[in-house]
Amino acid sequence: MRRYFPILDWGRSYGRETLTNDMIAAVIVTIMLIPQSLAYALLAGLPAEVGLYASIAPLLVYAVLGTSRALAVGPVAVASLMTAAAVGELAAQGTPEYLGAAIALAFLSGVMLLAMGFLRLGFLAAFLSHPVISGFISASGLIIAASQLKHILGVPASGHTLIEILGGLFAGLDQVNLPTLAIGLAATGFLYWSRGGLKRYLANRGVPARRAGLLSRTAPVVAVAATVLVTWLFGLEAAGVAIVGDVPSGLPTPALPPFDLTLWAQIAVPALLITIVGYVETVSVAQTLAAKRRQRIDPDQELIALGGANLGSAFSGGFPVTGGFARSVVNFDAGAETPAAGAFTAVGMALATLYLTPLLHYLPKATLAATIIVAVLSLVDLGALRRTWAFSRADAAAMAATILVTLAAGVEAGIVAGVGLSLFLHLYRTSRPHVAIVGQVPGTEHFRNIDRHAVVTAPDVVTIRIDESLYFPNARFLEDTVQAQVGANPRLRHVVLMCSAVNDIDASALESLETINQRLSDAGVTLHLSEVKGPVMDRLKRSHFLHDLTGGVFLTQFDAMRALAPDLACRTLAAGRRDLARNGG
Amino acid sequence: MRRYFPILDWGRSYGRETLTNDMIAAVIVTIMLIPQSLAYALLAGLPAEVGLYASIAPLLVYAVLGTSRALAVGPVAVASLMTAAAVGELAAQGTPEYLGAAIALAFLSGVMLLAMGFLRLGFLAAFLSHPVISGFISASGLIIAASQLKHILGVPASGHTLIEILGGLFAGLDQVNLPTLAIGLAATGFLYWSRGGLKRYLANRGVPARRAGLLSRTAPVVAVAATVLVTWLFGLEAAGVAIVGDVPSGLPTPALPPFDLTLWAQIAVPALLITIVGYVETVSVAQTLAAKRRQRIDPDQELIALGGANLGSAFSGGFPVTGGFARSVVNFDAGAETPAAGAFTAVGMALATLYLTPLLHYLPKATLAATIIVAVLSLVDLGALRRTWAFSRADAAAMAATILVTLAAGVEAGIVAGVGLSLFLHLYRTSRPHVAIVGQVPGTEHFRNIDRHAVVTAPDVVTIRIDESLYFPNARFLEDTVQAQVGANPRLRHVVLMCSAVNDIDASALESLETINQRLSDAGVTLHLSEVKGPVMDRLKRSHFLHDLTGGVFLTQFDAMRALAPDLACRTLAAGRRDLARNGG
Repeated sequence: MRRYFPILDWGRSYGRETLTNDMIAAVIVTIMLIPQSLAYALLAGLPAEVGLYASIAPLLVYAVLGTSRALAVGPVAVASLMTAAAVGELAAQGTPEYLGAAIALAFLSGVMLLAMGFLRLGFLAAFLSHPVISGFISASGLIIAASQLKHILGVPASGHTLIEILGGLFAGLDQVNLPTLAIGLAATGFLYWSRGGLKRYLANRGVPARRAGLLSRTAPVVAVAATVLVTWLFGLEAAGVAIVGDVPSGLPTPALPPFDLTLWAQIAVPALLITIVGYVETVSVAQTLAAKRRQRIDPDQELIALGGANLGSAFSGGFPVTGGFARSVVNFDAGAETPAAGAFTAVGMALATLYLTPLLHYLPKATLAATIIVAVLSLVDLGALRRTWAFSRADAAAMAATILVTLAAGVEAGIVAGVGLSLFLHLYRTSRPHVAIVGQVPGTEHFRNIDRHAVVTAPDVVTIRIDESLYFPNARFLEDTVQAQVGANPRLRHVVLMCSAVNDIDASALESLETINQRLSDAGVTLHLSEVKGPVMDRLKRSHFLHDLTGGVFLTQFDAMRALAPDLACRTLAAGRRDLARNGG
Repeated sequence: MRRYFPILDWGRSYGRETLTNDMIAAVIVTIMLIPQSLAYALLAGLPAEVGLYASIAPLLVYAVLGTSRALAVGPVAVASLMTAAAVGELAAQGTPEYLGAAIALAFLSGVMLLAMGFLRLGFLAAFLSHPVISGFISASGLIIAASQLKHILGVPASGHTLIEILGGLFAGLDQVNLPTLAIGLAATGFLYWSRGGLKRYLANRGVPARRAGLLSRTAPVVAVAATVLVTWLFGLEAAGVAIVGDVPSGLPTPALPPFDLTLWAQIAVPALLITIVGYVETVSVAQTLAAKRRQRIDPDQELIALGGANLGSAFSGGFPVTGGFARSVVNFDAGAETPAAGAFTAVGMALATLYLTPLLHYLPKATLAATIIVAVLSLVDLGALRRTWAFSRADAAAMAATILVTLAAGVEAGIVAGVGLSLFLHLYRTSRPHVAIVGQVPGTEHFRNIDRHAVVTAPDVVTIRIDESLYFPNARFLEDTVQAQVGANPRLRHVVLMCSAVNDIDASALESLETINQRLSDAGVTLHLSEVKGPVMDRLKRSHFLHDLTGGVFLTQFDAMRALAPDLACRTLAAGRRDLARNGG
């Protein structure tokens, strides 16, 4: 019971002081979340109130199910972009079908997360490698920023790839609306400054650093209030400034998400991608914050909590939610101690839908676009490509492919290409493990790679060390490797497989070993094993292989050498390094 | 040049003795191949002459491009079944569209093999694990045998799954044709006996074992000749015995395969599956035979040779071909020394299409069905399931799934399910490597798993040994593992990652290490590494990680222990095992 409801754990020791801290954090997060939830609804192509709805029920559910003490869930930039891309394929913005598809996306994503949680399939997220996720988020940030430029410029444009979006913007450049541009630039400039300059300004005035950081987070609400006021005072709507317009007030009505199998089939793949990307981000944020206070999160339970949050969103007319990075950090810095802070934030958002919506009528879309642009540009980190290139070219290739395909063909194609390429590279690497032919180091019982060290080998014995477990991706490679040695050495009489790095042998590798044993036997060559680990030996004993093996199993490689080339092994052991480099095989 | 045309290698030293041996082998293989090629065309639902065509050009192409000295290519049972399954979805048997689709399948498969050969993608075949391939071939054998029963019974039936086929047979049981049944049972019985009894009979009469084995391979031709004679003499066609009928004589006319992108898209997946299954079988046979004479084959060049053979088949009106197991063994046993034996076999088959086809008119289909049944039943090895279960349950599960899905839903679904499941299990295993918390063995500098050995640990140090390279599938697992240790030990001050089994670190794992380092630092814990291998260290030096690392990098784990808990490490080293088990941490 407690495993699935962490609230039973932290709820029992909930005291007055914790309550105070959680409530303070909730107030600050609420102030930050109001403009964000409106902005991400806009990004997803949905009515503004849907963003508010997605910031109520999901937070309550997460408070009951989540294991992270500081994670703040809700609408986030990348998932909103992915929602827009998925739903935009199926219906036109502003139609009930568009909204229904977004709700269904949250529902399916919730079901998938729950299923992964109960089936303990969280490991699947591990196949989204860091370079792919990093490239994907950078590229998404660029697409999102570009897509918001139309609101800043006040021109019509659409599209889900960078090329489409930029094309639309250029085509509309002659229709730029100057009042909109003025508001957009001012808001962007102010918000950008608030991220760095404001903090320094406050600090210079003697405000403590932590409080200055939290205060700077109120900048978006200040921008919202200021631009609403300006738009209303100067009647800018008449001058062509696009505004949010009427936002229905009142709490969301609980409703079933659309039950439509055809629709579900159409959005299954996007839902899966949103699920995995959202989960990876959520766990990563939650782990980082938990570590700061030496707390633990349970990644499998996080799947369930995030799944519940998405179902909560779907049943209250919202769209897909995940754990937000900036928001969770603010929550943490503001002193949130338990998930109850999230529940209090939900209450704050509910109050906003009840009483604040009339004030949002004159909110310019350009302000929300500015909020989004400033938020997502911090996600873009193209320098990561250079750093990754220095470290690993395969990883850099996967990252570059993800970025390019995302920019050119959209988010879904980008993430599929990235995961596909990194899995492909993984399979390729796995199928060709490092293999060394080893010889004895003179004066020792050690055996080292003949290509790197001055070692001694017997002419009729070859020792192959495989630096990897033996399983099906490399079983054939092993056969080819042994066969190549036999083909190349006509004098060969013994092959020793040195298994010091072999942690496991599966049925394919066993069959390959049997085949190798048989083929070597046909060619008059004996097969031996050395340094087989205990668990591997236990497993081999359950098969016929040890019975059929033409040679022996030696505890150490030196034992093998002493048995197969006794004179040479002992001479090499006795002799100094220098002497034997001259005489030895 | 020689890499791509192995004929330039062996052709230069081609002498009279080799010629004689190759020609003898070719005669024997031709005798075996005539009934087989007719039978497999029947199995694929194609006219009999298509089987002959597929046994001419492909053999000539393979002789030029192949690296195996004894491999005999041509139509085989499993690929023919897969062809029937793929093409049967698109067109009705006997139509030009059906034949065209089969030719296109050979063409696409040839193109895929060539592409894999030039791009060196042969490793992809490694992902068809032994249990999956074994289960798939057993299940295919059962389906093939069942599908041929209709010819033995003389009843109409069709279908691509065991259930469909058996259903059709039961429904037709009242229409059994007795003369057909008599011929079918007699041929099956004779052929079955020829596999064991005939050899013993000949051996008892003083025929040398090898010659007895080769003679028994003529049994199918004997059965063909005898049943043709009986059918013709007694006019059994009128009694309802289905016969092959008119087979056009003459060599195949070179022609382009159908150029139809829609068709290609429809058969792309089956073509890929035939490609991979065919390649795996081919390489496995070729390796086995090469080993017997200490020869080498080049797996990448085999892709090109098999690709060329399939293109040869497609351009001469044939269907997909691969290396046949039984046929290659006969070729080898009959003394074939070079791929020229295959070219001579092609000449033999060409002569057959020119002069033998009139004799095949009265050939009962029941005889061909008997040939197929006896051939494929030797492929069925359900005992492998039990043996695999004893060795590895995960592998047995993949094998059982492949068998069941193949029988119940057909060959394509079966192989996709098997590969999918084994990849899934592989990814699962990879993402959760073996990890041990280790402590010092008293009286030594060795460190062992605390769960298995009486070892000493310091209360504020935890040493984690990861028995796997660090890369993206297990990067998150590593983070979780470290985090769990920190959460569980409030007194912890040092984490040591013992990297003795880490052969590689990719960008994802590097980022995880950086994250772990940062999180531990936030929690006041220092991170250290020990026993980092040279190449891994070289790579880490190209990143910022070593600069940011809060702790040190120690050559040995004992060095780490001596630095972090000097008193305990030295006391443990000095003390006897028994004393320390009592006093130590």
